[in-house]
Amino acid sequence: MHVHVNAAVSADGKLSTRNREQVRISGDEDFARVDRVRAESDAVMVGVGTVLADDPSLVRFDQTHREALEIPGVPTRVVADSRARTPPDAEVLAGDAPTTVLVGEAAPDDRLDALRDAGASIVVAGEERVDLPAALAELEAERVRRLMVEGGGELVFSLFEDGLVDELTLYVGGLVLGGRDAPTIADGEGFVDRETFPRLALEGVERVDDGVVLNWSVESSRPLGAG
Amino acid sequence: MHVHVNAAVSADGKLSTRNREQVRISGDEDFARVDRVRAESDAVMVGVGTVLADDPSLVRFDQTHREALEIPGVPTRVVADSRARTPPDAEVLAGDAPTTVLVGEAAPDDRLDALRDAGASIVVAGEERVDLPAALAELEAERVRRLMVEGGGELVFSLFEDGLVDELTLYVGGLVLGGRDAPTIADGEGFVDRETFPRLALEGVERVDDGVVLNWSVESSRPLGAG
Repeated sequence: MHVHVNAAVSADGKLSTRNREQVRISGDEDFARVDRVRAESDAVMVGVGTVLADDPSLVRFDQTHREALEIPGVPTRVVADSRARTPPDAEVLAGDAPTTVLVGEAAPDDRLDALRDAGASIVVAGEERVDLPAALAELEAERVRRLMVEGGGELVFSLFEDGLVDELTLYVGGLVLGGRDAPTIADGEGFVDRETFPRLALEGVERVDDGVVLNWSVESSRPLGAG
Repeated sequence: MHVHVNAAVSADGKLSTRNREQVRISGDEDFARVDRVRAESDAVMVGVGTVLADDPSLVRFDQTHREALEIPGVPTRVVADSRARTPPDAEVLAGDAPTTVLVGEAAPDDRLDALRDAGASIVVAGEERVDLPAALAELEAERVRRLMVEGGGELVFSLFEDGLVDELTLYVGGLVLGGRDAPTIADGEGFVDRETFPRLALEGVERVDDGVVLNWSVESSRPLGAG
């Protein structure tokens, strides 16, 4: 599986303000680029924090581009949601596109029932927290070969920690959001041992809108405890 | 006065790990670029957090470049240090280069005496916290026309908050540090009102070492409470 993290950040590396309020960081040209990446993806994933903060529908993609690539159907929407906190009336469950919620075994049954009633498929992997390698293997078994991840920073850090990220694309926009508590593209506990820092190679630099798109491939990203 | 913030960050926007451990993010080519920026500066400033975490000497600069520009002397070292917490044996006070410590009126006299004994000049501005506009005006009166700021994120956020930053240069390197508590180039409280977000214009994009240098000019940065 190819896992591609894509997001827009301020010049100081923030996804949004400290209040988690969404900010328009990029512009129309980057939105079109993102819609193309979505069109090329079998599934588009976010963490539950992003669902709770932004309530995204994750249904937008470049239909023409997808048809040109002869990819059938629409991208599956995926939420990494250890405790099944996604509200059953969340936008990510609305509409016709399929939605898969990745949960841990500790997720309460009544919440899982409510999500199933709202049309979601449930993948159980791990105990208190979603076991991401196992959950992504499950998605791969369901023919997800290209997975796009749109955040947030907790999910993306966990993916890096588990050595699951192949590509990182960031639109860096011309504003400063600041805030020691504002979310970044990789939050979580953070790496402390230089042996475990994921190493990236810069594949592309392109001016887009009033900012720049940086495209990185992941050279090494070693799961903690491995090797 | 021209205020130029310069730093190296990881691809996910971190200055260092969550433990404030310095990480080599850039390489020799970027170090040489930074030494040229220092050579062009009348003063080089950091916040006391950076002094306590990294104990930088701030004496490096490109001597040849400075001589070619016919700028006399060496860059003055400046520490923004509201409560005068800079240790008298800090590297930033060692050596022959002059050092100015910006403090608030609440800074204890015994600490100020110790800093003066260690060779520092003291500028008092503000009460509990350094009044940065007043302190920088004082530096300007002492002929600091180009001030380079090397972090950390608390100082830089305050400078943006006070509308004092003219230019921001970030080397973005090919690694992920992660960490919701890891420092970024603009920490502090963070901006929440979109009217107050500092707006930047992208002036330059250049591949350097294994990363990219993004150069931004500040288009608007309105002090809170103004206008």
